[in-house]
Amino acid sequence: MITKHKTANVSFESLLRIFTVPEGPDSTLTKIEEKLSQNLNQFLREHIVAEEKPLKEIEKDFAFASIPEKPEFVSDHTQHLLDTLVSHSVHTSAPSFIGHMTSALPYFLMPLSKIMIALNQNLVKIETSKAFTPLERQVLGMLHRLVYNQDDHFYSNWMHSAQHSLGAFCSGGTIANITALWVARNNALKAQGKFQGVEKEGLYSAMKHYGYQGLAVLVSERGHYSLKKSADILGLGQQGLVAVKTDANNRICPQALSQKIVELKKNNIKPFAVVGVAGTTETGSIDPLCQIAEICIEHDCHFHVDAAWGGATLMSNNYRQLLKGIEQADSVTIDAHKQLYIPMGAGMVLFKHPDAMKSIEHHAQYILRMGSKDLGSHTLEGSRSGMAMLVYAAMHIISRPGYELLIDASIEKAKFFAELISQQDDFELVSEPELCLLTYRYIPAKVRKALEIALPEQRIQLNELVNELTQFIQKCQRETGKSFVSRTRLNPSRWDRLNTLVFRVVLANPLTSHDILRSVLEEQRIIAQQAPNLMAKILATSQSITEA
Amino acid sequence: MITKHKTANVSFESLLRIFTVPEGPDSTLTKIEEKLSQNLNQFLREHIVAEEKPLKEIEKDFAFASIPEKPEFVSDHTQHLLDTLVSHSVHTSAPSFIGHMTSALPYFLMPLSKIMIALNQNLVKIETSKAFTPLERQVLGMLHRLVYNQDDHFYSNWMHSAQHSLGAFCSGGTIANITALWVARNNALKAQGKFQGVEKEGLYSAMKHYGYQGLAVLVSERGHYSLKKSADILGLGQQGLVAVKTDANNRICPQALSQKIVELKKNNIKPFAVVGVAGTTETGSIDPLCQIAEICIEHDCHFHVDAAWGGATLMSNNYRQLLKGIEQADSVTIDAHKQLYIPMGAGMVLFKHPDAMKSIEHHAQYILRMGSKDLGSHTLEGSRSGMAMLVYAAMHIISRPGYELLIDASIEKAKFFAELISQQDDFELVSEPELCLLTYRYIPAKVRKALEIALPEQRIQLNELVNELTQFIQKCQRETGKSFVSRTRLNPSRWDRLNTLVFRVVLANPLTSHDILRSVLEEQRIIAQQAPNLMAKILATSQSITEA
Repeated sequence: MITKHKTANVSFESLLRIFTVPEGPDSTLTKIEEKLSQNLNQFLREHIVAEEKPLKEIEKDFAFASIPEKPEFVSDHTQHLLDTLVSHSVHTSAPSFIGHMTSALPYFLMPLSKIMIALNQNLVKIETSKAFTPLERQVLGMLHRLVYNQDDHFYSNWMHSAQHSLGAFCSGGTIANITALWVARNNALKAQGKFQGVEKEGLYSAMKHYGYQGLAVLVSERGHYSLKKSADILGLGQQGLVAVKTDANNRICPQALSQKIVELKKNNIKPFAVVGVAGTTETGSIDPLCQIAEICIEHDCHFHVDAAWGGATLMSNNYRQLLKGIEQADSVTIDAHKQLYIPMGAGMVLFKHPDAMKSIEHHAQYILRMGSKDLGSHTLEGSRSGMAMLVYAAMHIISRPGYELLIDASIEKAKFFAELISQQDDFELVSEPELCLLTYRYIPAKVRKALEIALPEQRIQLNELVNELTQFIQKCQRETGKSFVSRTRLNPSRWDRLNTLVFRVVLANPLTSHDILRSVLEEQRIIAQQAPNLMAKILATSQSITEA
Repeated sequence: MITKHKTANVSFESLLRIFTVPEGPDSTLTKIEEKLSQNLNQFLREHIVAEEKPLKEIEKDFAFASIPEKPEFVSDHTQHLLDTLVSHSVHTSAPSFIGHMTSALPYFLMPLSKIMIALNQNLVKIETSKAFTPLERQVLGMLHRLVYNQDDHFYSNWMHSAQHSLGAFCSGGTIANITALWVARNNALKAQGKFQGVEKEGLYSAMKHYGYQGLAVLVSERGHYSLKKSADILGLGQQGLVAVKTDANNRICPQALSQKIVELKKNNIKPFAVVGVAGTTETGSIDPLCQIAEICIEHDCHFHVDAAWGGATLMSNNYRQLLKGIEQADSVTIDAHKQLYIPMGAGMVLFKHPDAMKSIEHHAQYILRMGSKDLGSHTLEGSRSGMAMLVYAAMHIISRPGYELLIDASIEKAKFFAELISQQDDFELVSEPELCLLTYRYIPAKVRKALEIALPEQRIQLNELVNELTQFIQKCQRETGKSFVSRTRLNPSRWDRLNTLVFRVVLANPLTSHDILRSVLEEQRIIAQQAPNLMAKILATSQSITEA
């Protein structure tokens, strides 16, 4: 630990030192911090082991379930972290890590993060955050304007008003979505006559008062799993989240949506909210937001847009029209830790109307007193860090046109990759990129042809074999450690909506080059040959179909 | 921004640079980071302005609600952050900042935080966190053992089991409490016969199936406001959170608790959970946990302990008996960002039974697949950062005996301060410290005497005047910027449960000295004299009471 003796020991004086004396310039921790600050990519390439160690093996290093009775020196422990943790962590910022929504970070955010953490503000209240409170309100205002584009008057009226809130910062999209639906539920079941509102009397009383037999939130079958969680926690039950079918482009069918709403109403179930998705997690598709908005007005539903992924597209004047209609949403989720390139833990929910959040407002005695500007009176979370500072800094340093370049580059890279996949004989593009996501699979031309002409039974059988191959390739590629794509299951209409495993690619890292994309395909092609039995079976099945 | 030209401009090449080239050693950002790393306290003393600027003034710097169209140089923006944000932030680690639960951090956590942020893992799934997943499970296991002390066999069976979970990491105590009550609600309204469980069918169906007229969670009137939020979001309604009266020491009255439960049951309201508080936010009091546990067994209630603050006391073999009974809880909330000295954003909820969380388990296609060890299948939040690494490191470097010293020192400091206050003629200790929190107020001996003998009407009047003075002193002291205590409202039985404003003090910063405590009182005494009219009124009222 802190003392320099051979055996670490604990005294109150030595403890005080860790609060007052920083690590010296020669300490392991300082050196590692420096190396990583100078060239993160190189540092991680050197320290993360290339070939994946099985999780079972890694777990052995994390098996001891007691808090140590003996302190460790900072340097010793840092070395231990390097050997056991960092070496088996995931290089999420690698240009060839294109499987998930976690990407590279701008360098300046790392020292800024350290400053943010050292300041250790708590944004739940002004007394522990002071200037961070107006800063967070401003960031919410900026993103509100990005979505809703109200005039100066609007923002000077509401942005810093104690009684109002343009949204809430939160740890991520899940909390943002829950918050939006919480607000929507409470507004749908508000006080009326003697009934004091669902927030006071609860859901059972509310249902009896309003005479509903159930509540529903509608979203396309491609909606994020957090919405199911929201439906559970808010008391609607997972069945209260009604999945609406999508078209061939993974977008909600407005007609099916309308029909479902009418059906629900007939059964005396209140459809209080519809969620439009702007950038589905699996395919990056964008629902027809304008049409959803119309339906919501017609049926008096809260219109929420889950733009956790796609929201940042609004930064690009070239592509923001893809999200047309979002400005009609009552609430919008945006994750800054996705395409705004902020470290993990920066979600936001925005509300069109500055008084929408009144339905979830709460107060306490020692903080959040009536009339105070404490942010905590309108957040689901309590204590929160000063992450807003990182979003603020990134928006000033990168600026809107900078983000535009990043967004445009990602979308264009996805188009390039889609084109590249289509040119290959042995790959199939399963979902076209709308944003910078696409899905595809490895399937030799002969096999694809067989699948096309196969009878239903045969098709299911052959498709299952191809799924097996997809899973094999994806796992093997991940374990080899050179590049990473994720996988998911889709039901493409082109293949009779059969369960289809696909490679899923997210192209948000500005450092991912065209060459990397070419080599990802090349590697997958080679891996496919490493399952000779499965390949032989697939080819034989295909042949028997073609020859029949 | 990133280019070195006089006018910052944006090109894709310049953007790539911010992802690949760190700030140089001479940049403002690097220099600030260095200064702050070398001596945080001095840095903040130099940069945070001494006298508080009114919030209205600060807001002027954060009034612009548009995302900038022009990029800024990193150095320029850093200077801007220093001038407008850091200078008006709160020095939460100052030894004289004793008003809230945010304290100093050990130095080694700052570089470690930077490493954690640079790695940018996402703990929702193994594919973006690998070794961080077993690490987080181990940290949960360690804290589980601290509370429940199960044997090695237990932890080797469950700690890394894909189908089980000893708890969940989360952004803070609020999410931890909501998670605990969510689990409790779902277990209380589980599937039975044709009913598929509240998580599937929702609360309305559940109530009809079970035939309840309402649901309730019971907690003492000193329970944290997050519980009210939980009751709202979970659909019980705030009225479903039933406040039970406390004794003179701010602890729940077990008899009153039993009575309330019986009453609720008579009205066909299901009391599915009781929350015991181990360290109330306002006074640091600990409920009689053993007695609550018995009552919970008798009435088949989930027993949750909110030990967000007090849980760390278990680290001390000298004081852990204060929390006796916590090992009987079904679930426990602990915040590592409180008395475990971790930066903001490290909450945890632990469950005694490894399968308790099954009732909130959820899956998706692209992650959290059945049988996977992805942590996200048992968390309320989705994407999350690798904060667990900081808890892990702190537990190894400080160790249990180190935490014991810190906890003991805080409790003993509070005893010292309580003693010091009691010795003063013009101060009154309102709540004795059980942990390291206490409350008191400034009230000259004559005034206190008058209050004692006053008739009810007079007492209310005089007490209100004293409240006014308390508020004045607290605000003034905060604005002067030398030291900070918070304030809250209690209803002490000693004063007929009158609304009583008090100074609230949290003594968790190991750097807070006895001298600082002496000077806090001295400063308050002086400030009191700066309200001569109010003081005169108080004295005159007292005199008229005494002379009557």
